[in-house]
Amino acid sequence: MPHTFRPGDYSVFLGNLQDTFPAWLRERADSQMCLLADENTRLHCLPHFFEKTGLSPNTPVIEIPAGEQHKTLASCELIWQAMLDARLDRQALVINIGGGVIGDTGGFCAATWKRGVDFVQVPTTLLSMTDAAIGGKLGIDFQGIKNTIGVFRNPAAVFADPDFLQTLPERELLSGFAEVIKHALIGDPALWQRICATGFQVRPARHACDGPGSPSYNGWLEILRASIAVKVKIVQDDPFEKGLRALLNFGHTIGHALESYFMKTDDPLTHGEAIAIGMICETALSGGDAEAIAAVIRRHFPNRPIPPAIFPALWDLIQQDKKNAAGKVRMAIPGSEPFRMQLLEPTREEVEQCLIFYNGIKSV
Amino acid sequence: MPHTFRPGDYSVFLGNLQDTFPAWLRERADSQMCLLADENTRLHCLPHFFEKTGLSPNTPVIEIPAGEQHKTLASCELIWQAMLDARLDRQALVINIGGGVIGDTGGFCAATWKRGVDFVQVPTTLLSMTDAAIGGKLGIDFQGIKNTIGVFRNPAAVFADPDFLQTLPERELLSGFAEVIKHALIGDPALWQRICATGFQVRPARHACDGPGSPSYNGWLEILRASIAVKVKIVQDDPFEKGLRALLNFGHTIGHALESYFMKTDDPLTHGEAIAIGMICETALSGGDAEAIAAVIRRHFPNRPIPPAIFPALWDLIQQDKKNAAGKVRMAIPGSEPFRMQLLEPTREEVEQCLIFYNGIKSV
Repeated sequence: MPHTFRPGDYSVFLGNLQDTFPAWLRERADSQMCLLADENTRLHCLPHFFEKTGLSPNTPVIEIPAGEQHKTLASCELIWQAMLDARLDRQALVINIGGGVIGDTGGFCAATWKRGVDFVQVPTTLLSMTDAAIGGKLGIDFQGIKNTIGVFRNPAAVFADPDFLQTLPERELLSGFAEVIKHALIGDPALWQRICATGFQVRPARHACDGPGSPSYNGWLEILRASIAVKVKIVQDDPFEKGLRALLNFGHTIGHALESYFMKTDDPLTHGEAIAIGMICETALSGGDAEAIAAVIRRHFPNRPIPPAIFPALWDLIQQDKKNAAGKVRMAIPGSEPFRMQLLEPTREEVEQCLIFYNGIKSV
Repeated sequence: MPHTFRPGDYSVFLGNLQDTFPAWLRERADSQMCLLADENTRLHCLPHFFEKTGLSPNTPVIEIPAGEQHKTLASCELIWQAMLDARLDRQALVINIGGGVIGDTGGFCAATWKRGVDFVQVPTTLLSMTDAAIGGKLGIDFQGIKNTIGVFRNPAAVFADPDFLQTLPERELLSGFAEVIKHALIGDPALWQRICATGFQVRPARHACDGPGSPSYNGWLEILRASIAVKVKIVQDDPFEKGLRALLNFGHTIGHALESYFMKTDDPLTHGEAIAIGMICETALSGGDAEAIAAVIRRHFPNRPIPPAIFPALWDLIQQDKKNAAGKVRMAIPGSEPFRMQLLEPTREEVEQCLIFYNGIKSV
C-alpha cells in the first residue's frame, strides 16, 4: 500500500508508481504534458516510468546533461527553448524525472514558464526522494554558488518509488543517505539508532531493490517513510524558511561550500559526501558529540581531508550562504530534543578550527 | 495628500514621494538596500529620488541598458551578478526605479534572488504608474516572445509620483496613455468620456508637470487615480489571472504580436502604440464599436498601416500568447457593462480581417 504525506497543498506518494500516478493523473485535465530527464534517467528510468504509468512513450521529452555542474542558467535556457518549441501553454503539466538537479532545475523552469505551470516530481535518487523533491524549493546555481537563483513553489504532487533506487550507482545512493542521516539527527532518534546499529549498511543499489515486495524494497520503504516524515513535518511548520526549516540546512553551510569548491576541481564531492563532512564540522562547532556522528559517517563515506590551503576559499563561499544576514555567517544545528534547533554565528577562526578537527578524527 | 490603494498585501501610494517613501521605510528593518535603474532613469530620475526620499546617494545602484529589447535573460544575468558582487542577503530590499522594463526585470531578479527578496516599484513612466508596477506580474521576454519567463510576486510597496512624468519624452507619455484608455474602456465610463471630450490632449511632458500643486500635476493625479483604481479592482478580484484579470490583456494579444514583430525592425512600435492598434482590432473582432475607439486613438497616435505580408508572422506570434490553451487563440474583450468581459477564440482569417479593417479606417 502506498503511503501518502501532505506537506502542503499537494501530496507525496511513497510506493509503487503504478499504484499512485495513473489514479492521480485521471483526476486532472492538463492540456499538454512534457517530461524532463537527464541523459541517465532518460536511459534508465523513463522506460520504467512509461511501463508503470501507462503514459504514452510519445510524450515529448526534454533532456539536459546530467550532473550538478549543469544546474545552471544554461540548462534553463535549453529547457525554456524546448518549452517554446513545444508551444507549452499555461495549462501544461511538466513531469520531472530524476535527481535533485532535474527536480530543482525543471521545477524552476516550470515555475517561471508563463509565470508558472504545474509540475510533478518523480525523484529517482535517494537524495531527491527523501529531501530535494519535497518542500517547494526550486532553483539553480549561479557562478558556482548553490541555489542562488530560484523560487518557492510547490509541485502538484511528488511520486517516490523505491524501485528507482536500483538504477543508482552506489556512490549516488550514499549521497542521498547523508540526508537520511540528517533527518535522523534532526528529528527521529529511532531512525538514528537503526542507522547506528552494528551491521547496518547501505546496500549497494544492485541489491537494494529486487522489486516490490522483496525485503530490501520494504527496508527502503521503511527508511524512506521515517526520513520523509521528518522533512514533511518541518516543511508543514515552516514552508518559507522563516524559522525551524533552517534546521534542514544542518551540515549544508559548510557542506555547500565544500561542494562548490570541489565541483571546480577534478575530484568533486557528491552532495552527500560534502554534507556528511559539514554535519561533523557543524556539530563540532556547536560543541555537540561530533565523534559519534563521525563514527557513523566514516563507516559509509570515504575519508577526505580538507587542505588548510583552501580554508580562505571556503570561508569566502560560506559568506555567500543564503541564510546569512547583516554580514554574519549563520548556521542551524540540531538542539538537545528532536525538532529543536540552535543558531550559531561562528567566526572564520571557529570554522577553521572545526575543519582542523574534522581532518584529525580517526577513521572507525 | 497622497492616495493609497490596496491591491493585495501591499500598498500603492499615489502622490509626492517625499510624503510617502520615508515614512514607509522607517517601519522596516532591511539589512541592505540596492537601487536598480537604467541609463535614462539613473540620469533623470535618481537625483529626484534621492532628494525627495533623503536616501543616501551612496546606496549601491545597479544599472542596465534602457529599452524593451533589454528585457532579457542577459539583463537578469547582469543584475544577479551585481547582487552577487554586493553580497545581497535575503533581508535586502531592492528598489526598482524606472518604467515597465525595470520593474518587470528587476522585480523578477529580486523575486528569484535567494528564492526571493523584497522589492519596491518606483514607476517613472505613465505606463508603469498606471499598469506595469501594480499587480505582481514580473518577467522577461524570451526569444522575442513577451513575458514568457516570469513569476507572480507582489512588491513590498509601489510609489507612483506624477512628478516623474516630466522626465518623459512625449512618445513615452503617449505609450502609457494607451493603458489609461484601456482602463477607461474596461471599467470607467466617466474616464472614457473625459478622454473623448473635444480638446482633451495628452500634454507634452515638458508641460505636464510643472511641479506639485500645478494644475497639470493635479490633472495627472486625477487621471492616474481613476486609471489605477480600475487596475487595482481587477487585481484584487483575481490576483493570479484565473478569470477577470484576463481583461487587462485587452488589446494585448494582437498588440504584443505587433510589438514583438516590429521590435526586430528598424522602426519599432512603443508598447502603447502597439496596444492601441490591438484594442481597435480586437474590438472590431468582437463586433464592438471599433470606429469610436479608433477616433480617439487616431487623435493621439500616429497612423501605422500593417502590411499584409507580415500577417503570417503575426499569427505565429499570436499563437505563442500565454492566455491560449489547447492550441486555441484566446482574447478577452470588454463586455457591455464595466468590469464584464467576453472571451473570443478567433481564427486566423478573423484576425487578418480585423487587421485589414484597421488598415482601412480613416484618420479623424
